[in-house]
Amino acid sequence: MSSPGQNAERGPRRTPALKALQSIESSRLFQGAVISIILLSALTIGAKTYDLPPLLERSLPALDTAITLFFLVEILLRFAACPRKHRFLLNGWNLFDTVIVLGSLVPLENADAVLIGRLLRVFRVLRLVSVVPELRLLINALLKAIPRMGYIALLMFVIFYIYGAVGALFFAPVNEVLWGDISIAMLTLFRVATFEDWTDVMYETMAVYPLSWLFYLSFIFLTAFVFLNMMVGTILEVMTEEHNARSQRAAHDERQQLADQLARLEAKLDSLQRSPGDREGA
Amino acid sequence: MSSPGQNAERGPRRTPALKALQSIESSRLFQGAVISIILLSALTIGAKTYDLPPLLERSLPALDTAITLFFLVEILLRFAACPRKHRFLLNGWNLFDTVIVLGSLVPLENADAVLIGRLLRVFRVLRLVSVVPELRLLINALLKAIPRMGYIALLMFVIFYIYGAVGALFFAPVNEVLWGDISIAMLTLFRVATFEDWTDVMYETMAVYPLSWLFYLSFIFLTAFVFLNMMVGTILEVMTEEHNARSQRAAHDERQQLADQLARLEAKLDSLQRSPGDREGA
Amino acid sequence: MSSPGQNAERGPRRTPALKALQSIESSRLFQGAVISIILLSALTIGAKTYDLPPLLERSLPALDTAITLFFLVEILLRFAACPRKHRFLLNGWNLFDTVIVLGSLVPLENADAVLIGRLLRVFRVLRLVSVVPELRLLINALLKAIPRMGYIALLMFVIFYIYGAVGALFFAPVNEVLWGDISIAMLTLFRVATFEDWTDVMYETMAVYPLSWLFYLSFIFLTAFVFLNMMVGTILEVMTEEHNARSQRAAHDERQQLADQLARLEAKLDSLQRSPGDREGA
Amino acid sequence: MSSPGQNAERGPRRTPALKALQSIESSRLFQGAVISIILLSALTIGAKTYDLPPLLERSLPALDTAITLFFLVEILLRFAACPRKHRFLLNGWNLFDTVIVLGSLVPLENADAVLIGRLLRVFRVLRLVSVVPELRLLINALLKAIPRMGYIALLMFVIFYIYGAVGALFFAPVNEVLWGDISIAMLTLFRVATFEDWTDVMYETMAVYPLSWLFYLSFIFLTAFVFLNMMVGTILEVMTEEHNARSQRAAHDERQQLADQLARLEAKLDSLQRSPGDREGA
Repeated sequence: MSSPGQNAERGPRRTPALKALQSIESSRLFQGAVISIILLSALTIGAKTYDLPPLLERSLPALDTAITLFFLVEILLRFAACPRKHRFLLNGWNLFDTVIVLGSLVPLENADAVLIGRLLRVFRVLRLVSVVPELRLLINALLKAIPRMGYIALLMFVIFYIYGAVGALFFAPVNEVLWGDISIAMLTLFRVATFEDWTDVMYETMAVYPLSWLFYLSFIFLTAFVFLNMMVGTILEVMTEEHNARSQRAAHDERQQLADQLARLEAKLDSLQRSPGDREGA
Repeated sequence: MSSPGQNAERGPRRTPALKALQSIESSRLFQGAVISIILLSALTIGAKTYDLPPLLERSLPALDTAITLFFLVEILLRFAACPRKHRFLLNGWNLFDTVIVLGSLVPLENADAVLIGRLLRVFRVLRLVSVVPELRLLINALLKAIPRMGYIALLMFVIFYIYGAVGALFFAPVNEVLWGDISIAMLTLFRVATFEDWTDVMYETMAVYPLSWLFYLSFIFLTAFVFLNMMVGTILEVMTEEHNARSQRAAHDERQQLADQLARLEAKLDSLQRSPGDREGA
Repeated sequence: MSSPGQNAERGPRRTPALKALQSIESSRLFQGAVISIILLSALTIGAKTYDLPPLLERSLPALDTAITLFFLVEILLRFAACPRKHRFLLNGWNLFDTVIVLGSLVPLENADAVLIGRLLRVFRVLRLVSVVPELRLLINALLKAIPRMGYIALLMFVIFYIYGAVGALFFAPVNEVLWGDISIAMLTLFRVATFEDWTDVMYETMAVYPLSWLFYLSFIFLTAFVFLNMMVGTILEVMTEEHNARSQRAAHDERQQLADQLARLEAKLDSLQRSPGDREGA
Repeated sequence: MSSPGQNAERGPRRTPALKALQSIESSRLFQGAVISIILLSALTIGAKTYDLPPLLERSLPALDTAITLFFLVEILLRFAACPRKHRFLLNGWNLFDTVIVLGSLVPLENADAVLIGRLLRVFRVLRLVSVVPELRLLINALLKAIPRMGYIALLMFVIFYIYGAVGALFFAPVNEVLWGDISIAMLTLFRVATFEDWTDVMYETMAVYPLSWLFYLSFIFLTAFVFLNMMVGTILEVMTEEHNARSQRAAHDERQQLADQLARLEAKLDSLQRSPGDREGA
């Protein structure tokens, strides 16, 4: 566990310069400045969607450049403060920040890349998630919930695929726009699953196939049933983990006290058993 | 904990007059009268939205003045019955009642303030919440649930802001009314999140950007996923608190009995260990 | 608890005739016949809503009379089998059945009462609930859940009333049909709460009051928040009851065994303490 | 339990050929091949709904035949590897696979059966569920949840039937399309329960029966209330099972240790009680 190789990996000696950088990076002031700049960046993104007075309009690119530079400096500073440089990008949040900041460097003047560049500037708002620790925790918790839903999602996809294929097979002649091919049919089914004007879709096909309400109702019941069970399952699974970790620890502590008391009793009985013999032997 | 300063704060001597006021205030009859007047006030508010016979129409302002006066007298009485006058408004419910009653004093004749005055009269119905103890408890429980949802709400806002910015960036030329600027776009996204005619919004942009269904589906899945996790999280958190407080207390009581029994056993063993020696020594 | 008055109330001597009636009433065959007739009654109710061939159409009234007579005989039989006649209607299910059967006796020829008579015939389907024991249990469980939701429902009503009054106050000139008076406004708000074309309602008032989206969004968040908390609260409350009743009983049983073991140990120690003296005294 | 008859049933001697077949069937490679072919089959089903280039179009029937043959060979192989041939179809999953594969053998050239044949080909995608073990577990869990919902579903049906009968009775003259007979009325009520343009349905009948909002609101509250209770009930029931099975086992283990300690103590006390007499008797 503490082999020399690993020890070396745990980092080179922290030079005074590195320490200074790290204390800057973790200071409340610096964190506050980063959050403020992110919020400012979010505001400029929102502002661009309005019709602005010409003066403000012209100053936005400059502000944008300044924000980009600040973010670049910040990420370089964090990289400099990182004791193990070659591991910097292995941290998911660092990679995430670096990609977003590098994306912002794409020049907006290039007509082709202008939309991509703007899009990447929008994603700078996401840096709020990587900077505020509570949001980071929340995202980590959400990411943990994804695998739990994996097979349910696969089952849902199978249901959608089969109903989509059946829908495209039968209803394509009725309405080409809604049931033309399997991907359009699956989109229409998603619409039905959200109850969005689903009766319009149904009445249209019922005019040709009077029994097609069976198709829609069975689909709605099936998806609702699977969804409901997924929700119940998720609640139960998380609850089980929490419950096991928590309540058993507490119960175990109290039972341990009982066991300790019993062990003391046993020891005394042992000494009782031995002592009469000793005394008699005396 | 019981310093003279604090003792003084706990209130001056209760004079007989104060006691009489407090017994009036806390009497069932007085409470019932207040609730009846609030319900009457609610009825007059509702009645004003109908076309009424002229006689009733003319009598409503008088009734309104009477209700306002009653509320004013009631709050003054509660103020008089309060042992620490300078702390009266520090109680949230008292402040709430006072603001609503004072707001009702705005004269309705003033043409400019007529809507504001009417609005404040509507809020008098809310006094029902501050008067019925069960509703007060309920509101307190709901208020406690708000901070728990704080960071989830922030995350939701970030999602809405980013999708709103992207939507305004790409779809503004398609439909200015729905995607004109970021605030309108976020309102449109809220509409999509409630599944309200969301396919109409989608089909419109799909005519220009055929892949824009990805935008809507990812948004719906993301918000639904975060919302679902919030709900599960809330259920779990409240359950944990309840569970810890309750079941461990119960389990602890029974284990305490076992521990007491064991302690008695131990004491007897101790006396056994001592007594044989005594007896032999005798 | 066993005073002579109560004893008398517990019922007169069961005569052989009464016993025979009770054994008929509780027989599987009789129960099955009642359920079959209820289902037949449900079918005739459904059949009447279709265009039927004349022959069937003419035979339906006769069938209806036969069913009514069967139900009448059945309820009279149950009344005859009831040991305490004057308490028969105090049982909620008996009262329910009697009202429905008596309602069916209203002659359908009377033109004024024809709809009422038909309506009461529809309610005969509800007798299924009172006859199938599992459904009775389910209904009893649902009825128990109602008081739990009482104050939440009151709070919801206060929210609807206040928003309804504000809506009628401001939006009545915009759309008389949706916001004309407070009861129509509350119906419109219920529509908004179900997300049913709520944006159409909103866009209409936003044309006059551009900030009215605040009204709708605050209303939606408030009702959704209260509803969510109600759901969480309900789950927790029922779970708490279940959990207390069940798991503590189980835990108690096992702890009782430990306590018994300890008590046996204590008794043996007591005899040990006494016996050495006895033996020494001997 | 191990009577000769049962012993014989447990299977004839596994011949080397059978063993070879079983090792093929359970090999990772074979399982992977089956899943790949199912996915290919799903792709061809999806592909048929698109306009394809003529070359691909012509090759699809050949591919279809190849897939059908593969599935036929696979199921025959599984049958051959099954030690008890006459019990093969008693396994639900085997029956399911056999029906789907036999259904695929229906020749597509027959004009009448073409839609049925295509439909059965679509259901081949469902074989994914029977092949992937995690999905099989999921389906088994979902199937177990069905009886739990049985009586709730019956109650729901009674509610729908009664409201459907009342709706058809009163509203059929208002709108024949929505309320013409009881089955159409129940479909309209399902639409109301999903909040799909339910206000349009309501406003139409309110024009004739101004109080008919009572019909819709009571129906919505009733179904929502029953649905909510069903969800809460389901969560509780599953949770109870899980909880009982899990936490009590854990608690029992620890208590068992305490009981063992107590039993050891008791044995020692017993030997103490016996030994002094022995020693004194010596």
